[in-house]
Amino acid sequence: MTKSRMEAFSDGVLAIIITIMVLELHVPEGHGWSELGALWPKVAAYVISFVYVGIYWNNHHHLMHTVRRVTGGILWANLHLLFWLSLFPFVSGWAGESHFAREPMTAYGVVALMAALAYTILVRTIIGAGEQNHLLADAIGTDAKGNFSLVAYVVAIMAPLLGAWGVWASGVALVAVALVWLIPDRRIERVLDATPHP
Amino acid sequence: MTKSRMEAFSDGVLAIIITIMVLELHVPEGHGWSELGALWPKVAAYVISFVYVGIYWNNHHHLMHTVRRVTGGILWANLHLLFWLSLFPFVSGWAGESHFAREPMTAYGVVALMAALAYTILVRTIIGAGEQNHLLADAIGTDAKGNFSLVAYVVAIMAPLLGAWGVWASGVALVAVALVWLIPDRRIERVLDATPHP
Amino acid sequence: MTKSRMEAFSDGVLAIIITIMVLELHVPEGHGWSELGALWPKVAAYVISFVYVGIYWNNHHHLMHTVRRVTGGILWANLHLLFWLSLFPFVSGWAGESHFAREPMTAYGVVALMAALAYTILVRTIIGAGEQNHLLADAIGTDAKGNFSLVAYVVAIMAPLLGAWGVWASGVALVAVALVWLIPDRRIERVLDATPHP
Amino acid sequence: MTKSRMEAFSDGVLAIIITIMVLELHVPEGHGWSELGALWPKVAAYVISFVYVGIYWNNHHHLMHTVRRVTGGILWANLHLLFWLSLFPFVSGWAGESHFAREPMTAYGVVALMAALAYTILVRTIIGAGEQNHLLADAIGTDAKGNFSLVAYVVAIMAPLLGAWGVWASGVALVAVALVWLIPDRRIERVLDATPHP
Repeated sequence: MTKSRMEAFSDGVLAIIITIMVLELHVPEGHGWSELGALWPKVAAYVISFVYVGIYWNNHHHLMHTVRRVTGGILWANLHLLFWLSLFPFVSGWAGESHFAREPMTAYGVVALMAALAYTILVRTIIGAGEQNHLLADAIGTDAKGNFSLVAYVVAIMAPLLGAWGVWASGVALVAVALVWLIPDRRIERVLDATPHP
Repeated sequence: MTKSRMEAFSDGVLAIIITIMVLELHVPEGHGWSELGALWPKVAAYVISFVYVGIYWNNHHHLMHTVRRVTGGILWANLHLLFWLSLFPFVSGWAGESHFAREPMTAYGVVALMAALAYTILVRTIIGAGEQNHLLADAIGTDAKGNFSLVAYVVAIMAPLLGAWGVWASGVALVAVALVWLIPDRRIERVLDATPHP
Repeated sequence: MTKSRMEAFSDGVLAIIITIMVLELHVPEGHGWSELGALWPKVAAYVISFVYVGIYWNNHHHLMHTVRRVTGGILWANLHLLFWLSLFPFVSGWAGESHFAREPMTAYGVVALMAALAYTILVRTIIGAGEQNHLLADAIGTDAKGNFSLVAYVVAIMAPLLGAWGVWASGVALVAVALVWLIPDRRIERVLDATPHP
Repeated sequence: MTKSRMEAFSDGVLAIIITIMVLELHVPEGHGWSELGALWPKVAAYVISFVYVGIYWNNHHHLMHTVRRVTGGILWANLHLLFWLSLFPFVSGWAGESHFAREPMTAYGVVALMAALAYTILVRTIIGAGEQNHLLADAIGTDAKGNFSLVAYVVAIMAPLLGAWGVWASGVALVAVALVWLIPDRRIERVLDATPHP
């Protein structure tokens, strides 16, 4: 009961985050192709942010599978994650609006990093509360993807501070994280598949 | 479990898409009938887009009936569909704002076509994963409606590029697709009705 | 299954409608009491519209109780109702923005009337599909409230067309409908209470 | 059934409230750190309001645990609570926009107080309807937190009226309430834990 309601609330927040980002695509004044083309940075930022939030929804969904009971600590760790994810529309809009200037790229990297840390805190809170089932421990295993992401986020944050070229490094790092996680749940899914369930 | 959560998330996203479109109907500055009347292109675009998203929700709802288990591939095929549907408020607002100019009409047709392709990909992914039950195969049958829609979308996209008259052809094609699909689920529903269910 | 998903989608749309209306309360430029006080027409319009949507949610909730199975016709009758309800933020914002001018009041009355008709169509569609259980027939009974509302809506629509005083008559009529329906479900609730249910 | 749908609707409204508050963080025109830094009052207001709505969601979630059946009175007491919570984005945006000027701080305090009263009315309505189970009575106990909050809200409302320093007292009082309630459900949770449940 508790668990399904936390899922429903998280689904609602994530659904709204992923959808209101499109509101940053303001309808252009004119109606030519050039006006549409001028929106490309916002469209690109929207696509990558859509994928990011989609990855989080996907992982959240799998993570919740492993939880038996929701404690107060888990509820707040979950709200903390949703807080950082709720800033994606802002940094995404800023990055697009500024045509991927240096400061917005660093800001995007910071929000992406904080969301990743919040996700890690959520996982640890679940384990700390002893409410995970054996699937979670089996499923996490070596965290090669997590370590790669951490390095990539640091690149995404720092590189733009070093020079104009850093914006490109930052963008590549952020896209690489998205690509690496695009099929993020294979590990948990494989364990789930191997486990008989009703 | 998994399936009901994917449905809940999709419902949330579709509910938000269908509702934020109304935000493009900005409250007019004045309060006369002429100010309200000047909104007619936006109202018309809103009505047709509302019907489009309603059709997708309706079909999605029936499609999910036939799915037994949700895989990672199905989750991403579903997110891909939601991505294209999330662009409806933008192209709808642009088409209305520009009084149905040629470029926005083509853009609307492109988004409508991409959403249709994403829906097809979702159906194929479900079948490819072997997670559909027999209802889906029974229910799809000959895809006359799908073929008609494909032709109509091509008309909707190409006609405005050929001349000012093309805007009207585009609009007629898009409305025709909506009308054809307005009762889109009869085929699946008939099979469901013929199947005893608890 | 079908029914619970239609409820979830309707809940989502109604939750968004009721919440985005608050976006019409734009944060004032200044920070004095006079700037806040100047918002009173928007606040008043928000309160009455919140109550209207709340009444519809409440009634919808009770109506769905009586439905056994959802057909395609019921789905579309439901979407039709949601369409008219989705226009409340627009007419509410317009009425408030214009300090309850004559044309916006008539427009508000038209939307309120169309929503009421859409609700009636939904009820008739459920009965026509033979999918209601006996509770609905028992519960509707004489429709004194419905007839009162119809007269009030006609007053709300016509009075502002006749003169400036009509705006007040329109407002009184709309508030009266809200008050009459504020406890709208007693009839169905009484029948439900009298019926043993698991 | 009734109960789960009221929860779903409340979850939807709360998810939207908590998410649209981020829309007040308008993307800055420029792309320097100073433009981002200038947003700090809005960010601070967003953080505190996010925590407030999170606390209400959390408490609402626990409160609903204790309800057996939803009556018409409970539905309206719940809508009344959602109404006041829906004003948080407005007062939060106003407080941030005005750099925490005196009038917006008082307005924020008033909305926070009204939401607290609405929550109390909801609890009383549940008890009055005799629909709570024994958990609620056990769980509420002495209401030290509630009394502290009441005093803090009065400080938050009155202090800014007395002088410029009052804005700080108001801010401290509002943050203190958030901190006190951040782990608000221990009492109910403890009782729940002590109760065997399936």
